[in-house]
Amino acid sequence: MEAQNNCFIGCEKSFDESSAIIFGAGFDGTTSFKPGARFAPSAMREDSWYIESYSPYFDKDLEDLNLFDFGDLELPYGDKKTALRIIQEHVQEIIDANKIPIMIGGEHLVSLAPIKALSKKYDDLHIIHFDAHTDLRNEYLGEALSHATVLRRIYDQLGDDRLNQFCIRSGLKEEFQWAKTHSHLEKFTYNTLEERVNVLKNKPVYITIDLDVFDPSVFPGTGTPEPGGINFHDMLKIIETLSKLENVVGMDVVELSPKYDTSGASTAVACKTLRELILATVK
Amino acid sequence: MEAQNNCFIGCEKSFDESSAIIFGAGFDGTTSFKPGARFAPSAMREDSWYIESYSPYFDKDLEDLNLFDFGDLELPYGDKKTALRIIQEHVQEIIDANKIPIMIGGEHLVSLAPIKALSKKYDDLHIIHFDAHTDLRNEYLGEALSHATVLRRIYDQLGDDRLNQFCIRSGLKEEFQWAKTHSHLEKFTYNTLEERVNVLKNKPVYITIDLDVFDPSVFPGTGTPEPGGINFHDMLKIIETLSKLENVVGMDVVELSPKYDTSGASTAVACKTLRELILATVK
Amino acid sequence: MEAQNNCFIGCEKSFDESSAIIFGAGFDGTTSFKPGARFAPSAMREDSWYIESYSPYFDKDLEDLNLFDFGDLELPYGDKKTALRIIQEHVQEIIDANKIPIMIGGEHLVSLAPIKALSKKYDDLHIIHFDAHTDLRNEYLGEALSHATVLRRIYDQLGDDRLNQFCIRSGLKEEFQWAKTHSHLEKFTYNTLEERVNVLKNKPVYITIDLDVFDPSVFPGTGTPEPGGINFHDMLKIIETLSKLENVVGMDVVELSPKYDTSGASTAVACKTLRELILATVK
Amino acid sequence: MEAQNNCFIGCEKSFDESSAIIFGAGFDGTTSFKPGARFAPSAMREDSWYIESYSPYFDKDLEDLNLFDFGDLELPYGDKKTALRIIQEHVQEIIDANKIPIMIGGEHLVSLAPIKALSKKYDDLHIIHFDAHTDLRNEYLGEALSHATVLRRIYDQLGDDRLNQFCIRSGLKEEFQWAKTHSHLEKFTYNTLEERVNVLKNKPVYITIDLDVFDPSVFPGTGTPEPGGINFHDMLKIIETLSKLENVVGMDVVELSPKYDTSGASTAVACKTLRELILATVK
Amino acid sequence: MEAQNNCFIGCEKSFDESSAIIFGAGFDGTTSFKPGARFAPSAMREDSWYIESYSPYFDKDLEDLNLFDFGDLELPYGDKKTALRIIQEHVQEIIDANKIPIMIGGEHLVSLAPIKALSKKYDDLHIIHFDAHTDLRNEYLGEALSHATVLRRIYDQLGDDRLNQFCIRSGLKEEFQWAKTHSHLEKFTYNTLEERVNVLKNKPVYITIDLDVFDPSVFPGTGTPEPGGINFHDMLKIIETLSKLENVVGMDVVELSPKYDTSGASTAVACKTLRELILATVK
Amino acid sequence: MEAQNNCFIGCEKSFDESSAIIFGAGFDGTTSFKPGARFAPSAMREDSWYIESYSPYFDKDLEDLNLFDFGDLELPYGDKKTALRIIQEHVQEIIDANKIPIMIGGEHLVSLAPIKALSKKYDDLHIIHFDAHTDLRNEYLGEALSHATVLRRIYDQLGDDRLNQFCIRSGLKEEFQWAKTHSHLEKFTYNTLEERVNVLKNKPVYITIDLDVFDPSVFPGTGTPEPGGINFHDMLKIIETLSKLENVVGMDVVELSPKYDTSGASTAVACKTLRELILATVK
Repeated sequence: MEAQNNCFIGCEKSFDESSAIIFGAGFDGTTSFKPGARFAPSAMREDSWYIESYSPYFDKDLEDLNLFDFGDLELPYGDKKTALRIIQEHVQEIIDANKIPIMIGGEHLVSLAPIKALSKKYDDLHIIHFDAHTDLRNEYLGEALSHATVLRRIYDQLGDDRLNQFCIRSGLKEEFQWAKTHSHLEKFTYNTLEERVNVLKNKPVYITIDLDVFDPSVFPGTGTPEPGGINFHDMLKIIETLSKLENVVGMDVVELSPKYDTSGASTAVACKTLRELILATVK
Repeated sequence: MEAQNNCFIGCEKSFDESSAIIFGAGFDGTTSFKPGARFAPSAMREDSWYIESYSPYFDKDLEDLNLFDFGDLELPYGDKKTALRIIQEHVQEIIDANKIPIMIGGEHLVSLAPIKALSKKYDDLHIIHFDAHTDLRNEYLGEALSHATVLRRIYDQLGDDRLNQFCIRSGLKEEFQWAKTHSHLEKFTYNTLEERVNVLKNKPVYITIDLDVFDPSVFPGTGTPEPGGINFHDMLKIIETLSKLENVVGMDVVELSPKYDTSGASTAVACKTLRELILATVK
Repeated sequence: MEAQNNCFIGCEKSFDESSAIIFGAGFDGTTSFKPGARFAPSAMREDSWYIESYSPYFDKDLEDLNLFDFGDLELPYGDKKTALRIIQEHVQEIIDANKIPIMIGGEHLVSLAPIKALSKKYDDLHIIHFDAHTDLRNEYLGEALSHATVLRRIYDQLGDDRLNQFCIRSGLKEEFQWAKTHSHLEKFTYNTLEERVNVLKNKPVYITIDLDVFDPSVFPGTGTPEPGGINFHDMLKIIETLSKLENVVGMDVVELSPKYDTSGASTAVACKTLRELILATVK
Repeated sequence: MEAQNNCFIGCEKSFDESSAIIFGAGFDGTTSFKPGARFAPSAMREDSWYIESYSPYFDKDLEDLNLFDFGDLELPYGDKKTALRIIQEHVQEIIDANKIPIMIGGEHLVSLAPIKALSKKYDDLHIIHFDAHTDLRNEYLGEALSHATVLRRIYDQLGDDRLNQFCIRSGLKEEFQWAKTHSHLEKFTYNTLEERVNVLKNKPVYITIDLDVFDPSVFPGTGTPEPGGINFHDMLKIIETLSKLENVVGMDVVELSPKYDTSGASTAVACKTLRELILATVK
Repeated sequence: MEAQNNCFIGCEKSFDESSAIIFGAGFDGTTSFKPGARFAPSAMREDSWYIESYSPYFDKDLEDLNLFDFGDLELPYGDKKTALRIIQEHVQEIIDANKIPIMIGGEHLVSLAPIKALSKKYDDLHIIHFDAHTDLRNEYLGEALSHATVLRRIYDQLGDDRLNQFCIRSGLKEEFQWAKTHSHLEKFTYNTLEERVNVLKNKPVYITIDLDVFDPSVFPGTGTPEPGGINFHDMLKIIETLSKLENVVGMDVVELSPKYDTSGASTAVACKTLRELILATVK
Repeated sequence: MEAQNNCFIGCEKSFDESSAIIFGAGFDGTTSFKPGARFAPSAMREDSWYIESYSPYFDKDLEDLNLFDFGDLELPYGDKKTALRIIQEHVQEIIDANKIPIMIGGEHLVSLAPIKALSKKYDDLHIIHFDAHTDLRNEYLGEALSHATVLRRIYDQLGDDRLNQFCIRSGLKEEFQWAKTHSHLEKFTYNTLEERVNVLKNKPVYITIDLDVFDPSVFPGTGTPEPGGINFHDMLKIIETLSKLENVVGMDVVELSPKYDTSGASTAVACKTLRELILATVK
């Protein structure tokens, strides 16, 4: 008698069989308003079974891909550097095996770890980033490593012309200013996404979706709800556009904080976003 | 001194005076994810008093119709066959008195009972169905009678060319496949509704609204929230189209699970949907 | 060592330095369905710090204005007349000092107090009103002073051609009838707003936003959720239009009931609406 | 076909058949902290069906008594005087028919109305009162009629040596001082209850239970939770003692605010308290 | 890379190594009030990691035993007979391997399945049962198989003098009557537990704990909260008494409904009860 | 016009006038289960106004003492060392002015900061500690500074015979072992408290109350609910015993996480505990 597996729906293959590896990185130690993103990976795993593995949008099924769900990394909530190191080492193992890492956060800071690992393998790594917030501060409350600085730290890693940010609707004036010369940042909308995707078609691309890009009506279960975001139909259009990318080398969805939405609607949104994103970009 | 009546707003006539009869059928015994639709009828009755009986959309008032609210049927949660039998007998009484049954679910399985009763009276009964889910499985977890199979069971009753399904966005690949030859199923949207309504204008029509057809942002209070649905403005357009039907012989709204939306917004949506639907279709 | 101040974000100036004065009037004593608007001012103050003071929509910052947050008035919940008197006296102090009152409700009845005070100063005061409900009853449950009669009482104060009501989607038939000759009332939408703003451009205008004008998907945290409302993008368009007014002499946002939305999304919507409204209209 | 009745469990007799009459008086307009007691009567009615009508404590059944549940009075929340008048007139009807009024509040202020009515009939009416709070202020926030003054107003009606207060654990120093000469007030406990019941055995007695007499662990669903109260076993002992009273002429349970306890445990406590109280005191 | 296991704390051994086997049977299809016990097993597994595996009460550690957690059985919610059959077959496998089944419910009906399996192996099987409710009806809402009839069905299996019921505080008069001749039923308390444990010391005993035996203050997260129950200190005394049993052949804890207690306190109570029960009875 | 102050009830004096200074230190960055203690200080401040400032237990009033409430320290959630440094500096300022620091946490780690500051002033500082958990690990998830290690770090500061721990009911076997030679640790109960208070009567004592010492029934609003704790009557007895201490030099209450108890009962318990503790120990 073997113990039952509690994986994300449609991810029942072994590590060796799989081309992409899901794992949870539920760190939320720098969250400044309402922490709780640590509970996202297990909530998404459990509720994923109540959406289907089949997508009528793409007419594809997760079960037709080869996907393995590792489960969650054990991370110390009070020690962000150790947490990032553990994540990065885990991603290194995945990419060393020529597989694509798919991370469920946690707060947005965790995105730094896989991008650091991937930037060693791909020296022309580009980032496509959806978010309500710029995340471009140089420091936040005296901290260089924070959910509010993560894109700036990624910039430190990758340099100019690598960040592509969409739907951004909140930040300091200075951040928007800074972005003008260092990032492709589109305020409020994603009109330029298709154009950027065409440019990046064959480049190695990492996609990071801070789920607070959704309007709080669609996604109340997050630490810093910011009104004025996109709805789920927008996300479907975005993912259809992203499906034209030919070399997606990693991806994450972050900032679901499930206990703030007891209806479970936010968790369903996170699950379906991840399902569509995988079906669109993992070959 | 008489006990106060707790009816749905505007339904204060007696059975004999009324042309349409509201009743609750709060069965949710086959719900596979989050049960609780049993609490819908009483929640809707209580909260209906905080929307008005007057609709500025149709410039009509529930109080100008003749409506009776029976209250709730007592149903055994662990025995779906008995539950369906009790509902069907109750509907039979209503249609024997030449009145229109208006049912508040409960899970979607309950729709089978009034349709069975009505199909004996109207041999060309047609169904107009709004839902997130196909509900066309032949069985689900080994059960032939389930919220996930209910439209298939209705099909068994009525046969080809009777089901008209709109806004469907989730199901198995096989279900969508099956629908191609047995049902008029429109994925995601309701663009063909007007055309179908024109065809069915004088036919006896039963309308069943699984309220999870709404996007979870609009309607989080349901057992299986499925992102990507319609908003309330869409529902108003749908109901305006339905108002052209001249022979609506029964209707239901199902799958409100009020305890999953403590704000009460979902219950308000259910109440207002039902108010507009009645004003549009009950003559 | 001085006690820390708990003001609304960006409102850290002194009374004397400031051109506009924020205060809370958390009265909800006539609420007929779900009371709790009394908790709105303190919830908005606390959560305002998690939106920014900078608006990328207007490219303006609350900190560049001169704003003082007084805190909350102490009001007796069981005595509406005394409550209204206390608010009116407080507003009188503000306008005597040539400053603009910005009130956070509370239920909608509180709007009567600042409008009474301002109508003495400006005899051509006009009202721009956003709401789900007409609020035009002459009395409600036998009460002349109620959240459901407040616009009628304001009419009693100001007379014909002063009320401009938008997005109204619920009320009695009689109210809509009455409005035809006494108020500019636009049902459902705000298509005529721009035209009215052009007419009122140089007039003294008071803006009152009953936050239940939002659809409950956007704003579930309110006492009487009414489906079919506007979304946050609509509100941004509305506020942009309002920014053309040159003589806004007071404003309020009312009917947030934060405990009914434990996710905090409604509070965030209220805060951001107020931030944008201030940036658009306070010079 | 008759509409189903939604009464409190075991209260299915007609008015005329019955010796005691239950009704709801869900007024909460003077609540100073968290309003919501208005929702108590309908919540108790609905959930009463999930406790039994039979008590193994008293080996008695509600169905063996003759009880009628009128339903709820319609009360204006913003007008305490009118609300009290409506309640008093309703109680007058009940006692004119020689029946015992059993009121479900609402906030504690509502107790004033039946006591006023009963004090006209019984000039030696005594009160037995369980509460966390003294409720003996002469005025509260400038209001003479308030949940915090209600026992003082009852005193005004009845005079010295009529109030018997137990388990009181919160109040102003002045209130405790005042009580020393005007009320039998036992702080914290109910050790003197038996002695007082023996004295009052044949007197007409009104019992008023402010449910916040329970510790918040037992009864979190109330507007002003006050730690340090009694548990349910204490209440059973209290009610057993009260069963020795031979002339209970009225009773109430007040201050359940069901929406603050989404688990439903507080509502169950209120229902079972009321069941036991009725079985103990209604002959 | 192996997938992480999500077992109950301290249950990390393999099936073959283990002397006792934990599994989840989250069926709740006959629940008459508030369903949701289906979510208990996964909630307990996740939260068990935040109590310790070490008990300072027994000075023992779960990790010193040999325990395997199978995970959850997949059960059809709408088909109680199939659900019971699947559970019984699973238990048969466990006892065929000479291991002790430890079941996490689900509603109380699930207890019937392991007891049926065990009664074939042990013809002198005795039951020790803790509950708020008698569960002795012969049928409930027309159903013979129900959470409210389960002990009666167990009686049908085992006969007189096998049921030992403690802390029972709710039921029909007839059930208490029936119990007098067929069951050892102690109302309200557990004073006779020690005596019964002494008698049953060497007999094969199955322990079933309906967690609603706890007072709702301790355990609000259950479908039918019944005031007047025991507290956690009582449970510790009960379990210490149970530790004298020398032949416990199976056990279960049922009726946690975690979504009704969003604080997680009920889940913690369930986990710690199970930890102590295992440490006390599994050798 | 001055801004209204939002202090803890009865703490309206200035810093200079006061003998004791309340402040909030809402750090919760190392919380391993459910974070949210950061919201405790503002929740307690707001809700403190709905208990009285007068205690009928001690017949004393907070307003008769001289108390100042500073408000909250701004602390970086992702940087525990900086957070502890800011708290320690703030406490240093308070003790330099010969005033008593009264801290509202935050997670338990924050207690380390005031104790460090006080240990420099009082070289015979003793700790009286109430908690569910030992908090004596040498490290936790690789972190030396953690809520689970804080008493061990305090030990590092003060040495043997300084820690007095009561009501401890959870920890590793090793921790209980270690405590035998380094700490006065009483498991489960507080029977030895009086004896220890007599010994420490004239010593400088710091009191730290981890509010999870309460049973979760009394205090569900905490990150790691641990069944089997004390009730509020126990706490009153504890505080009465503590009132015999003649040199209490600092105190804190920590680990309220208000968002996990939406009823507000836990916040009320925290407020009343703090009120009684201040009245008992601040002269």
